Amino acid sequence: MVHKILVDGKWREAARPAGSFSAINPATGKNLPDAYPVSSWTDIKAALEGAATAVDGLAKSGPDGVAAFLDSFAEKVERRRESLAETAHRETALPAEPRLGSVELPRLIDQLRQAAGACRERSWCRATIDAKLDIRSKYGPLGGPVVVFGPNNFPFAYNAIGGGDLAAALAAGNPVIGKAHPSHPETTRLLAQAAWEALEESGLPPSSVQLLFHFGSDDGLRLVSHPSIGATAFTGSRPAGMKLKEAADKAGKPIYLEMSSANPVFILPGAVEERPAEIAGELVNSCLLAAGQMCTKPGLVIIPGNSSGEAFLELIRKAFEESEPAFLLGHKVLEGLREASARLARAGAVLVAGGREPGGPGVKFMPTLFRLSGEGFLRNPAAFQVESFGSLSLVVLASDLPEMVNIASALDGHLTGSVYSHSGGMDDAAYSAIEPLLRRRVGRLLNDRMPTGVAVSPAMNHGGPYPATGHPGFTAVGFPAAMLRFAALHCYDHVRPHRLPPELRDENPTGNMWRFIDGEWTRRSL
Amino acid sequence: MVHKILVDGKWREAARPAGSFSAINPATGKNLPDAYPVSSWTDIKAALEGAATAVDGLAKSGPDGVAAFLDSFAEKVERRRESLAETAHRETALPAEPRLGSVELPRLIDQLRQAAGACRERSWCRATIDAKLDIRSKYGPLGGPVVVFGPNNFPFAYNAIGGGDLAAALAAGNPVIGKAHPSHPETTRLLAQAAWEALEESGLPPSSVQLLFHFGSDDGLRLVSHPSIGATAFTGSRPAGMKLKEAADKAGKPIYLEMSSANPVFILPGAVEERPAEIAGELVNSCLLAAGQMCTKPGLVIIPGNSSGEAFLELIRKAFEESEPAFLLGHKVLEGLREASARLARAGAVLVAGGREPGGPGVKFMPTLFRLSGEGFLRNPAAFQVESFGSLSLVVLASDLPEMVNIASALDGHLTGSVYSHSGGMDDAAYSAIEPLLRRRVGRLLNDRMPTGVAVSPAMNHGGPYPATGHPGFTAVGFPAAMLRFAALHCYDHVRPHRLPPELRDENPTGNMWRFIDGEWTRRSL
Repeated sequence: MVHKILVDGKWREAARPAGSFSAINPATGKNLPDAYPVSSWTDIKAALEGAATAVDGLAKSGPDGVAAFLDSFAEKVERRRESLAETAHRETALPAEPRLGSVELPRLIDQLRQAAGACRERSWCRATIDAKLDIRSKYGPLGGPVVVFGPNNFPFAYNAIGGGDLAAALAAGNPVIGKAHPSHPETTRLLAQAAWEALEESGLPPSSVQLLFHFGSDDGLRLVSHPSIGATAFTGSRPAGMKLKEAADKAGKPIYLEMSSANPVFILPGAVEERPAEIAGELVNSCLLAAGQMCTKPGLVIIPGNSSGEAFLELIRKAFEESEPAFLLGHKVLEGLREASARLARAGAVLVAGGREPGGPGVKFMPTLFRLSGEGFLRNPAAFQVESFGSLSLVVLASDLPEMVNIASALDGHLTGSVYSHSGGMDDAAYSAIEPLLRRRVGRLLNDRMPTGVAVSPAMNHGGPYPATGHPGFTAVGFPAAMLRFAALHCYDHVRPHRLPPELRDENPTGNMWRFIDGEWTRRSL
Repeated sequence: MVHKILVDGKWREAARPAGSFSAINPATGKNLPDAYPVSSWTDIKAALEGAATAVDGLAKSGPDGVAAFLDSFAEKVERRRESLAETAHRETALPAEPRLGSVELPRLIDQLRQAAGACRERSWCRATIDAKLDIRSKYGPLGGPVVVFGPNNFPFAYNAIGGGDLAAALAAGNPVIGKAHPSHPETTRLLAQAAWEALEESGLPPSSVQLLFHFGSDDGLRLVSHPSIGATAFTGSRPAGMKLKEAADKAGKPIYLEMSSANPVFILPGAVEERPAEIAGELVNSCLLAAGQMCTKPGLVIIPGNSSGEAFLELIRKAFEESEPAFLLGHKVLEGLREASARLARAGAVLVAGGREPGGPGVKFMPTLFRLSGEGFLRNPAAFQVESFGSLSLVVLASDLPEMVNIASALDGHLTGSVYSHSGGMDDAAYSAIEPLLRRRVGRLLNDRMPTGVAVSPAMNHGGPYPATGHPGFTAVGFPAAMLRFAALHCYDHVRPHRLPPELRDENPTGNMWRFIDGEWTRRSL
């Protein structure tokens, strides 16, 4: 039996599917029994038509209706905590506890509730009123669905159905067409089931959330460039992201991509002298968390090339060697690690730990560490800052501060950049030399802290300059900021008061919404 | 003698120029005497290198330094008011008074001062502090220059040197490389001279503002996709914008485009009945303002196809016929109007006024009006909503309300959309049917008001969905919003207090900057 897709408010069989697929259990390497359809354009077209009807319906439901749905969805997910964690564990081999059931699922629930709160509170839309000129503006929905491509590594928090992109897109008033990641279709189906029930309960248009499990890459390109969509959100590999970006760009459709990041970590000489064991411990934990399958895994570590640096590297190397390999998300990740190892070795980096499969059941790769001189890095910076997704990191030993500065200058755009420094002022000069270069190349800058762990905070930026993402001004995590990706700026010039959206009328619609009126942020009515 | 370019703080001869060009005086159709270089890549490269040094220098100068420059620039422009207005008049044939000297130049000055104010006040950067998690973020400069391509139709307010894009880019902390519009090089040179003096006076890096007069289109594509630039701002024709967009998109470089708009105006049945002469007067004025060479000119007017509509059309037709043709900005605009007339006629619209050159000296075209049935429009909507730059508009007579609604549904993205309605409730049902469709297709929605006249207000949106611009979330006019185009989101995660930018430290750096602290917009310190 092939599972049904969720289109236009109904669970129905895929129409003329292009095929079907199954997920694997990475802990055994074997296929799981259930099958899911690869949709043809017929299904996508039906989803587009369904979404078009939801656009108007969502406007009528208003922020309170959408917030009620998000809260109800969160509650239904919470009630299915155990079965969701078990299912996701079976499909990803990530630990059911604490990771899936007690960390990631609560995060999904928290995101849905934060989105509901932002939606209900309305300040996210940045209502701006020029009373004298009677010009008023705010952010509003895009007028078409947001297509969400979920990644493999977060079956809950970034799931196309229920993850941060869906929450942000809906909270901004847009319907969502989710494409499951094919490595965890059943998890996604269960989330969609919860969403479907919540849609019914909250009275939102039934096609506000739709699910397709898979489709061919040509259909994907056609979808992200379709005239009737609003925008696309994609989290995944750089090659896939680049193809989607090209198609969307040509059609003038906004696309938000999180494509890859090496998350450079600079460890300055004073820090290496002062607390090598502590920093090495943090680094190894961060590198090997979830088998390195994190978008913010430190993939590139720059340390001093002196004897302290060598001793520090030896600490890390040992820890990598002594670490048990964890299951990977699937065969593609394994292949990627094999290729990355070969690529790095070819380019001149030296393998110091791992680099091979451990044998035994399931999909695994040994924690893998490479080393390289600063000079070697600078000969071909592009080759050494490509993300190697999984438990693989590269340590670069810089001969002196100018070389470290040159390495910072040679970086592309990344999601994060960290600088570890002496707790006193010993590294201040080095910090001042490196920080301005790193600042403009990353979305989030950290001090004495590893980049894994992305808090859902209004001040978060989970984004960064190209090629980490497609635009340096947007974050994929954090409310209300993440909602602005899925919004158009709507100006009303001398529009009669009763025709204005409530957020722009003289009276504050909730009593406590923040608005920018005549140069002041205020909660007062006009 | 060929004029000098402004690169790296010096007025110098173009290196191995690809040629030279002169502007014309549109009132005579004859060439003006001065010659300006067409730069080769050597000059562009030098400008890129100059800009790279300015990036760090601007960070050191800080917001107060940039604001001092913008104010000083404004003052120097003000002191040259008469010579600037005369020069621009000679190059554009726009009236020296009041348009150039008393409307547009004061607008440029006001924009520079508003930008200086926003820069000094700092609230634009939306400092967001999560005190509990110690995560802080704000918008900051892009780390590379903003390349500005100015248009032909506003020699001051949108000039690559001194116009709104330069003001916004600099106020956000980015150096600017301006490319003059070749129809008003001398105006641009005089503005650059004022900028150059103001740079020296304010102590800003001398390469913060650079001027190239012209370069080949291949070099333009290379520039907007160059790894070291921050972003591009372009105002001009759709074909040129689309080429630049493609190149910038491929390189992952942000590009903000204002490419074209037909600015649909819907005049509902009750309004046509109630006040035909008043609305016709407003419409004709708006269509023929500056010979129709406005980005917000009503190019597409939808009226009821009944006898009142016919009478209304007759009022407009007469006014068009009786209007004196004004000088156009150049031969290209004239060619464009000839082509647009031929294109509309070929597609089935019927010429009812103008459509030809009047004869006599200078570059002119008769105010030109076409009519078309709603059915005719709906047969090929794409053909009838391309911008016809200049004094040419199309009136569509819709047979009934459903046809008007279908026309609204068939619209692409435009900068503005207007709806004229009965002053009582007579048109409310029609308004409710059309507004949601129009809302998502335009940046600025107007009621009972023509779209020409773009106020420099924080609530303005001079932008709109593709293909009017490249992204529906940004405005090119209005401070501080326009600055966000030229900004990256910078997050600081556990960065030590003394290493934070002043805007994100506990203490409010100005005492009155707005910051979003723990969910509240506030001016207090933490």
